[in-house]
Amino acid sequence: MGDDKALTPRAEDFSAWYNEVVHRAELAEHSPVRGSMVIRPWGYGIWERMQRALDDMFKATGHENAYFPLLIPMSFIEREKEHVKGFKPELAVVTHAGGKELDEPLAIRPTSETIIYSMYARWVQSYRDLPVKMNQWANVMRWELRTRLFLRTAEFLWQEGHTAHATEEEAEEETRLMLEIYRKFMEEWIAMPVVTGLKSDSEKFAGAVRTYACEGMMQDRKALQAGTSHHLGQNFSRQFGLTFQSEAGVEEYAWNTSWGVSTRLVGGMVMTHGDDSGIVVPPRLAPSQVVIVPIYRKDSEREGVVGKAHELKARLTELDVRVKVDDRDHLNPGAKFYEWERKGVPFRLEIGPRDLAKEQVVLVKRVTGEGEDRKAFLPEAQAVAELPARLEAFQDQLLTLARKRREEHSYRGVESMDRLKEIMDGPGGFVYTGWSGDPAVEERVKAETGATLRCIPDPDFQSPEQPSRCIGGGEAQSEVIWAKAY
Amino acid sequence: MGDDKALTPRAEDFSAWYNEVVHRAELAEHSPVRGSMVIRPWGYGIWERMQRALDDMFKATGHENAYFPLLIPMSFIEREKEHVKGFKPELAVVTHAGGKELDEPLAIRPTSETIIYSMYARWVQSYRDLPVKMNQWANVMRWELRTRLFLRTAEFLWQEGHTAHATEEEAEEETRLMLEIYRKFMEEWIAMPVVTGLKSDSEKFAGAVRTYACEGMMQDRKALQAGTSHHLGQNFSRQFGLTFQSEAGVEEYAWNTSWGVSTRLVGGMVMTHGDDSGIVVPPRLAPSQVVIVPIYRKDSEREGVVGKAHELKARLTELDVRVKVDDRDHLNPGAKFYEWERKGVPFRLEIGPRDLAKEQVVLVKRVTGEGEDRKAFLPEAQAVAELPARLEAFQDQLLTLARKRREEHSYRGVESMDRLKEIMDGPGGFVYTGWSGDPAVEERVKAETGATLRCIPDPDFQSPEQPSRCIGGGEAQSEVIWAKAY
Repeated sequence: MGDDKALTPRAEDFSAWYNEVVHRAELAEHSPVRGSMVIRPWGYGIWERMQRALDDMFKATGHENAYFPLLIPMSFIEREKEHVKGFKPELAVVTHAGGKELDEPLAIRPTSETIIYSMYARWVQSYRDLPVKMNQWANVMRWELRTRLFLRTAEFLWQEGHTAHATEEEAEEETRLMLEIYRKFMEEWIAMPVVTGLKSDSEKFAGAVRTYACEGMMQDRKALQAGTSHHLGQNFSRQFGLTFQSEAGVEEYAWNTSWGVSTRLVGGMVMTHGDDSGIVVPPRLAPSQVVIVPIYRKDSEREGVVGKAHELKARLTELDVRVKVDDRDHLNPGAKFYEWERKGVPFRLEIGPRDLAKEQVVLVKRVTGEGEDRKAFLPEAQAVAELPARLEAFQDQLLTLARKRREEHSYRGVESMDRLKEIMDGPGGFVYTGWSGDPAVEERVKAETGATLRCIPDPDFQSPEQPSRCIGGGEAQSEVIWAKAY
Repeated sequence: MGDDKALTPRAEDFSAWYNEVVHRAELAEHSPVRGSMVIRPWGYGIWERMQRALDDMFKATGHENAYFPLLIPMSFIEREKEHVKGFKPELAVVTHAGGKELDEPLAIRPTSETIIYSMYARWVQSYRDLPVKMNQWANVMRWELRTRLFLRTAEFLWQEGHTAHATEEEAEEETRLMLEIYRKFMEEWIAMPVVTGLKSDSEKFAGAVRTYACEGMMQDRKALQAGTSHHLGQNFSRQFGLTFQSEAGVEEYAWNTSWGVSTRLVGGMVMTHGDDSGIVVPPRLAPSQVVIVPIYRKDSEREGVVGKAHELKARLTELDVRVKVDDRDHLNPGAKFYEWERKGVPFRLEIGPRDLAKEQVVLVKRVTGEGEDRKAFLPEAQAVAELPARLEAFQDQLLTLARKRREEHSYRGVESMDRLKEIMDGPGGFVYTGWSGDPAVEERVKAETGATLRCIPDPDFQSPEQPSRCIGGGEAQSEVIWAKAY
């Protein structure tokens, strides 16, 4: 594994850097099963914190968790015609079970609209049974040819919310609400600022009427679609007989929404904050927020500093700070510093015999802003008392830095295809232009520049001046954002 | 669904009662996919609380969560010869993916020893890397012919812990520790008393050296194997090259353990505490511990009682009591009482206009002991203040009742096959006898009485007098427990 070798710098080869850092921060690795990854405890601990935060937000907005089958009859997937077109090529199919060939092959769920709405159809009779607002945490499978840890794997972990409503307006409101919850979560927890907006028809979910997405900008200036929220209209309710008797006594089809985020978010975190020393984990997501490294040369020194380390841990734990004491004897302090930097722990506390005598500690911050010192020599009591606030400030700082980076690489008011191409061939970034709504323009941009239409940004993200000309010529219908994407 | 029809009484047909109550308490139902169930929010909410409690116990004993692939190459499963014998007949197999036939078929994991130890083999080099103590929360698949909701389904949710150790003693210690954690969890959270003990060779896990289990007694006097903990010896480490360099510099095979509990525990909860009115959920597991039903006839009364209901909810929430206000207008109070009794909510609070005037409430307890009143008319403030303690007492009472039931149906010192058969043909229960250790005796008992050897009980559960004669004749090697089982 070459753990003492430096990482490939991001500027040299971002993709190589990503692969190395995911391995060497022990987030995940490839498994013997093609396209499937193993999520290691450090990576899974981050995902668990994401799950907990999202789950709380879902529950606070009236959603309940449930669990639906992993296997879906092929005939279900084939019922909604856009859906099957989108997903059939990527299915993994069970043909044999219990030593026999099955009468009907079963697909491992690539997403669960079909099976879930078939169940809702059993449960919903009247408008009084609506809305139904459920979520499930599950594994899904999409057989991808080119896989990358977290970003694109055959199997991945996600949550998928599925709701049914009596009216189109209510479904639209839900779709937007969940998009907004995702945006908030990504900013407040991952410190990953995202633009929200509507997908063009060519990029929307197979079976949706409208897809909204959160788009983040990674450090290589490529876009990461980090979460999506779909208004499904009555497309699935018609296929699965999901009807209800309205207040007026009329039989109507329900309106559905679905929305999901996945372990891809861990990849987004890595590519938003990581540096040439390793990943950086935002304090709110870090399984350990502070690592304490006791420093000693002789056995006689060991007891004092290790004892102090555990005492500080106890005091910090009382302040709800998550602390790890690294008292492994077979590694020298340098090796430990290196490992925890690679794993992105926000703060390191060093305590040596001299610090002990002076009742001070050395506090080292994983990421510093311009002109900020990396190390602080602090009285022990002060370090303990200040750490909760310092962690909060660290979290804010990451978001500010990421937002600044995004703005530096956002180009508004671009009007020519040449300029768009120049940006894509050069530094890359988010390019805002007008668009006529014609899919042929999307194809042309993709062919000439490699960029895709990321979204029609929501009002909060639109340029002050709305463009009047389409990048492909003619009149613009709306402003759109182009970028190369994961 | 016939929601207003009474349940089949347990005494009449326990199995029919179970199926009905699981459906009508909205815990789960069958899905369109053979053998796979849908876990509905009320059932999933109970499972989530079980998960959280277990997860905390695992982490407190130094285990970390991780995630390993759903699909396992067939060649992996075939490597450990006992393992493949046990699991191959139940596999669901993916033969096609991404529109093509796979070179090697992939099995949906029935359990993950093979894939996990193949990964541990990569990560472990030295004794310093040991122990490795990981757990995963996952879905698994075992193609069963006869399925029953929660008790036996093709797909189920579980956790599986997998550890690697430098010595046999340490692995044995871990195996026993996890068994003890399971026992504690089952008693303290599910209020389901269990006997722990060793499985006979014929009942042990395919690939294990020794299997320990927790055995609960259901209300029909059948045993439920509720959790297992396996000492795997070096069986898997030898097949997957999981070696380490010992402190003495010698290459050695690691010692493994694995242990798991599943959504089967929800079935155990149902069959331990349910009655002819529905299920009973122990307070610690209940998504709602108290349901408040406002009672009113006229609109003029509605505002006052509903307002009070929400006020009481707020006050109880501050005391960490989980409360639901059932203010649905289209159902009368009787229908609500009936529904929440069926779903097993521990306490119901009724408030009508008269109660409001008198500042009192009616508190109704889901389960009462002998001579205990079901209803209490209490001053509002007292009801609020006492509920946390009343919930704790309710939890304890369930355990006491279940333990009493088990003891009433435990038969110690049984010496003849005739007596064993008489008990099994009659009331059923746990029958303690001596056993020579001969598997032929197990076969004979099974053939003649329908009972299987549940376990060789741990010292805490052994009879004061250890039997000297084997139930099949000859000398006893140990005491064992026989019962019919799920």
